Amino acid sequence: MSVEPASAADLDVVCIGNAIVDVLTQTDDATLMRLGMTKGSMSMVDAEAAERLYNELGPGIETSGGSAGNTAAGLASLGAKCAYIGKVRDDRLGEIFAHDIQAVGVEYSTAPATAGPPTARCLILITPDAERTMNTYLGACADLGPDDIDEKLVGRAQVTYLEGYLWDRDAAKQAFLRAARLAHAAGRMTALTLSDSFCVDRHRDSFRELISGHIDILFANEAEILSLYEVDNFDAALQHAREDCAVAALTRSEKGSVVISGEEVHVVDADPVSPVIDTTGAGDQYAAGFLHGYTRGKELALCARVGGIAAAEVISHVGPRPQVNLSDLVEARLSAR
Amino acid sequence: MSVEPASAADLDVVCIGNAIVDVLTQTDDATLMRLGMTKGSMSMVDAEAAERLYNELGPGIETSGGSAGNTAAGLASLGAKCAYIGKVRDDRLGEIFAHDIQAVGVEYSTAPATAGPPTARCLILITPDAERTMNTYLGACADLGPDDIDEKLVGRAQVTYLEGYLWDRDAAKQAFLRAARLAHAAGRMTALTLSDSFCVDRHRDSFRELISGHIDILFANEAEILSLYEVDNFDAALQHAREDCAVAALTRSEKGSVVISGEEVHVVDADPVSPVIDTTGAGDQYAAGFLHGYTRGKELALCARVGGIAAAEVISHVGPRPQVNLSDLVEARLSAR
Repeated sequence: MSVEPASAADLDVVCIGNAIVDVLTQTDDATLMRLGMTKGSMSMVDAEAAERLYNELGPGIETSGGSAGNTAAGLASLGAKCAYIGKVRDDRLGEIFAHDIQAVGVEYSTAPATAGPPTARCLILITPDAERTMNTYLGACADLGPDDIDEKLVGRAQVTYLEGYLWDRDAAKQAFLRAARLAHAAGRMTALTLSDSFCVDRHRDSFRELISGHIDILFANEAEILSLYEVDNFDAALQHAREDCAVAALTRSEKGSVVISGEEVHVVDADPVSPVIDTTGAGDQYAAGFLHGYTRGKELALCARVGGIAAAEVISHVGPRPQVNLSDLVEARLSAR
Repeated sequence: MSVEPASAADLDVVCIGNAIVDVLTQTDDATLMRLGMTKGSMSMVDAEAAERLYNELGPGIETSGGSAGNTAAGLASLGAKCAYIGKVRDDRLGEIFAHDIQAVGVEYSTAPATAGPPTARCLILITPDAERTMNTYLGACADLGPDDIDEKLVGRAQVTYLEGYLWDRDAAKQAFLRAARLAHAAGRMTALTLSDSFCVDRHRDSFRELISGHIDILFANEAEILSLYEVDNFDAALQHAREDCAVAALTRSEKGSVVISGEEVHVVDADPVSPVIDTTGAGDQYAAGFLHGYTRGKELALCARVGGIAAAEVISHVGPRPQVNLSDLVEARLSAR
């Protein structure tokens, strides 16, 4: 199965997500416990809690992030043509976000908010076991609405890629559905990443409707897909996903990924990484690699392999975006076989 | 997909293999190197080399083994009705073999050789990493031929299960083909385990013919299936196996197993084991568990799960046969979910 290139698709992927600046800090388990955080989770915090945490942890490394933003950056590093839609405020962090994503070659022209809450930030606490615990203050992201979805932009891209985190806000949800409808109306495809098992818990039923009604390609990790279908083992989740989605790419950390599409199935090993430094962005980069292959009409097994290579790169260092040219890396890894 | 019970099948499985007594010894990597052995491999040795090794390593634990014999013992422990066909000599080790397999409830009536080489033995060297390196002296096994295949016995069993090691000897090969033909003529099914990647290397083309022409259910581990199809990654092997076999159950050590049957696919996790003591017999017990489920008409995912539970038990201790009642263990593990 491969994408049928529609006419005049000059973009490979348009990614829509929460535009967030990450603030990365290394910490320990005791601190997580003291702050009452569940390791590995993503929690939403309000302005006040964000301020308090920021003061408590001290300044960290500021780097533009956001799940779909990271995927867009990965796609650009792979040589794909892509665009990003996400909302910042006209403040310092908003400028940093726009600068970073444009600097890697991603088209980004969502109008910044001129009033209301500041640009979103995510305080990421990295423990020595390379797990990350995230506290997100959504700030200006909450202002993303249907009007921010540029019909022309969506029509220009082979795939419109949506991050599940958007499903937390009503206006963003409407933006999301509008984007999916516009994509399909233009003969394009849609993709969704479930983002987080807690996010799936919050919206299980509406996610299932969304997937069966509007999504062509589903990305999920094992915890997310188990939560989505409320089953206790991977194989049971796999059978459900097979029924619901045209393509499901299910990631399993060091076990690699399984891609299922109708009668087609692929069980693809993870790319080796030693040591794993920080798992932030692994799923985002897997999606980038997979979509890069997919929009070039590659076999699903190769899409999964490229996803695995991109994911392996990003977990080999701190930070959610690639630090090498992924296009070169993929070429080297594939020819090394 | 489930087995259609043919009339008058009073046996679940008849296993055909090399009747071997194992001699287990714990050793270290340096000794393996000194003896010129490749860790994890199974080598054939002649009478003289077997004698020399036996003297060098000193006496070990004698226990009836043989790949298909271990599977028969596992099936019996699971509560299946089964029989075994394999050749011993009328000597002390031959008596031990017959005693052990009959003691666990397996029907065994192959006539022992009254002349020629002694009962086969396998010197198994276990290193601290739980890997086993095997040196097999086939002895009397070489005498197994078409006449040892009891047509009535094969006709009584739902599945005739064959171990790939038999493919090393011409007479056994003929016995093997006769068993497969008799099974199909009686409306029964056949299963094959590839046994060993070196064994696959020795007989690649004829194994491929055998599988596509005579085998319904294929068991293989990752190294074996990669060797069979001469590919470098699991997914590529999976696609080949899907074309060739009605059912392929592919084991991947700690990654669990993948079962593929036409449009049906299952990715099933391994049962947890800590610590792994000795991997001897893991594949044999997986096959036992899988076939036990299969001959009871269970779903393929459950067959794989039972296989995983049986394999986990056998690698948690030294020795290739179960040390607990597998039927009770499986019930406990399945209800613990």
